[in-house]
Amino acid sequence: MFISKLFIPITKDLPAEAKIKSHQLMLRTGMIKQSSAGIYSWLPLGFKVMKKIEQIVREEQNSIGAQEMLMPTIQSSEIWKESGRYDDYGEEMLRIKDRQGRELLYGPTNEELITDVFRSSVKSYKSLPQLLYHIQWKFRDEIRPRFGVMRCKEFYMKDAYSFDLSDEEAKKSYNKMFYSYLKTFDKLDLKAIPMAADTGPIGGDLSHEFVILAETGESDIYADKNIFKIDPNKYKLEDGSLQKMREDYSKIYAATDEKYKKEDFEKSVKKEDQIITKGIEVGHIFYFSDKYSKPMNCLIDDKSGKKTSVKMGSYGIGVSRLVGAIIEAKYNNEIMKWPKTVAPFDIVIIPSISKNNKENLEKAEKVYNELKKQNIDVLLDDVDENMSNKFKKHDLIGVPYQIIIGSKSDGDSFEFKELNEKSEILSLDNIKLKLKS
Amino acid sequence: MFISKLFIPITKDLPAEAKIKSHQLMLRTGMIKQSSAGIYSWLPLGFKVMKKIEQIVREEQNSIGAQEMLMPTIQSSEIWKESGRYDDYGEEMLRIKDRQGRELLYGPTNEELITDVFRSSVKSYKSLPQLLYHIQWKFRDEIRPRFGVMRCKEFYMKDAYSFDLSDEEAKKSYNKMFYSYLKTFDKLDLKAIPMAADTGPIGGDLSHEFVILAETGESDIYADKNIFKIDPNKYKLEDGSLQKMREDYSKIYAATDEKYKKEDFEKSVKKEDQIITKGIEVGHIFYFSDKYSKPMNCLIDDKSGKKTSVKMGSYGIGVSRLVGAIIEAKYNNEIMKWPKTVAPFDIVIIPSISKNNKENLEKAEKVYNELKKQNIDVLLDDVDENMSNKFKKHDLIGVPYQIIIGSKSDGDSFEFKELNEKSEILSLDNIKLKLKS
Repeated sequence: MFISKLFIPITKDLPAEAKIKSHQLMLRTGMIKQSSAGIYSWLPLGFKVMKKIEQIVREEQNSIGAQEMLMPTIQSSEIWKESGRYDDYGEEMLRIKDRQGRELLYGPTNEELITDVFRSSVKSYKSLPQLLYHIQWKFRDEIRPRFGVMRCKEFYMKDAYSFDLSDEEAKKSYNKMFYSYLKTFDKLDLKAIPMAADTGPIGGDLSHEFVILAETGESDIYADKNIFKIDPNKYKLEDGSLQKMREDYSKIYAATDEKYKKEDFEKSVKKEDQIITKGIEVGHIFYFSDKYSKPMNCLIDDKSGKKTSVKMGSYGIGVSRLVGAIIEAKYNNEIMKWPKTVAPFDIVIIPSISKNNKENLEKAEKVYNELKKQNIDVLLDDVDENMSNKFKKHDLIGVPYQIIIGSKSDGDSFEFKELNEKSEILSLDNIKLKLKS
Repeated sequence: MFISKLFIPITKDLPAEAKIKSHQLMLRTGMIKQSSAGIYSWLPLGFKVMKKIEQIVREEQNSIGAQEMLMPTIQSSEIWKESGRYDDYGEEMLRIKDRQGRELLYGPTNEELITDVFRSSVKSYKSLPQLLYHIQWKFRDEIRPRFGVMRCKEFYMKDAYSFDLSDEEAKKSYNKMFYSYLKTFDKLDLKAIPMAADTGPIGGDLSHEFVILAETGESDIYADKNIFKIDPNKYKLEDGSLQKMREDYSKIYAATDEKYKKEDFEKSVKKEDQIITKGIEVGHIFYFSDKYSKPMNCLIDDKSGKKTSVKMGSYGIGVSRLVGAIIEAKYNNEIMKWPKTVAPFDIVIIPSISKNNKENLEKAEKVYNELKKQNIDVLLDDVDENMSNKFKKHDLIGVPYQIIIGSKSDGDSFEFKELNEKSEILSLDNIKLKLKS
């Protein structure tokens, strides 16, 4: 893609309400545009990053055997009355009447709807366990939406649901999701800590939130830094190994302000291992047994032929929120560097161009075509602008690798640079190898 | 995927309102489940097909240089008041009030919202032409939703928008989309006819709908069968070639009942070339110049520095509707065969299994693992059920290729069958070659 063709409207005058750095950067680099309070359009640059995150989330859900499906955004109030949450949920639920006066709502979450799908489909323990997920837009009518995509009204979320015959089996599904979440955040190059959490309006008695460290985070975090020594990749997708994983994590102190107790923290974590910082919630998992299946009459025949309420859990990852969270974690000193796995482009070519000399641009186009042939997703900055401005711009756009075509490029050798690192002179073949590694 | 693990709830008792064959088949094979009137959940089988269609649509949009982005589902009423459509649109628009009494709506289409994005971003003719698209859920509050996903309330649609400096330039964008649509439907193995059409509530004076032939279609079609002799792949993505393409198509008679005139049809089409049948609209493109940009003040500096309203068109493909439309076109005599490009699986292995003999199942699993290694998406029917029932089931599920493992399989040779064709005995290597071709 040539940057002159890319729809990337840079906002220079930031609105006063853009207070945190992810909100500011996303507006400055034309990743999003607000359409009304708490509701955004995703422009091509932001959209590409979000789609890459979505794909990583998807692959890690599929890898534990979860099946993808898609529930609609608009739900009937009927099922929420069955579960008892229609009145409980409060004003954050966007309530709608259709032209015939029927009560509808824009789904803020999908426990009721998936229970309704399941009860009409599955009747026997033989079809269990089941893990189903979808990635769909949700709506919460926040009274005071803020922080850009971090706390907005319309947001993109992966929510999964597990169905088991017994509490014991259900915990195995819970552990699988726990594992999948650790691997997802690892692939996103985020340090995520799983923490025992309260269950809030979802309900149940077992819950973890996954929190990444970021100075601008919304909650205070108290943790033992040894928790980062656990490598999620050492566990296997087997019940025993996953149970061990849960135990390994629960042995090490980590709590948000919600659950933090000073005494416990001081007693169980050595002074030099204490981390006190801020964090951002990027995932939340719940086990709530028959909280929905019982009132909604979602019954399964057990091995003896007796009907029993299916045991359920739910598992969320904020996909659109993760775009902001990654920026909060990675953007410092006017430099944003996207993790390779979610970067909007693999590499950017920055030629030095002047009105009277297009030679560098021609070279750049040759390199561009070479890389394109290798299925490398290249951005070419073909704008006639001085190099110092270009570099500043690309510090913000955050493509992790650069080829700079100016005085230092010579024949088939080019100045290659990882963002925020020193540059080196490399042949194009070596550059290709670096990108593929 | 083993079919015993696949979430594929078969519906045996069809509801009375399932009148057309796509609606019936999608319920029978557990592709969708209705959640409320005109609103459906997409279960794994249906979801997979829809995603594959979406991906083909996406690739053909990208190939003409359109850029993907994503607008939200919920829009403010403000912009619709600016364009004048808020009152005009009528009761099909789902109107919503949020907790603070603000008027919102669930977007039925996005001309206003994209114009709002564009006017705040692009100021100069130098950034033109631009083609932007998104694939997003839309809502139309149909008074009488019916025919399953063919005429439902919440539907998935690709809509693109073009921006040009002059009417002349804009027609070139229109031709590019026309071309992209022909290639899209060609990849979906559909015979689509572009037909001059009325513009309805979108407006403008140039419009084509793309209609596929299906006996159960909603409109009457009158066409010259020579239109199918035009191969869209012979044109190139160049202004001249695309103009020729438009002319070639417009020379051959094709009209829906809306525009049909008996006299013209009889006069311009030879008796033996006349097709009179039914059709389903799967795409619709519009050129409406400054219909939205003028009232919404979306201005561009032209080459002389004068401000002028940008010239726009819009281009829709019903992605969820296409799932139903393909079934209407391809499902006959209790046999559905998905086009290879959108089939839910590449191949299904059907072993003959009985309680006392699991030998065929073991063979099947070996073949399954072999094919999986080649990245072939395989379904294995591991259920203990008689073969005649299995074949009937797979006639409906519609995976286009089968390996049957029973008495005829011998060593490394297996009974291989293209759905609804004769079977042959092939080695696994030859089967792999057939699938890759």
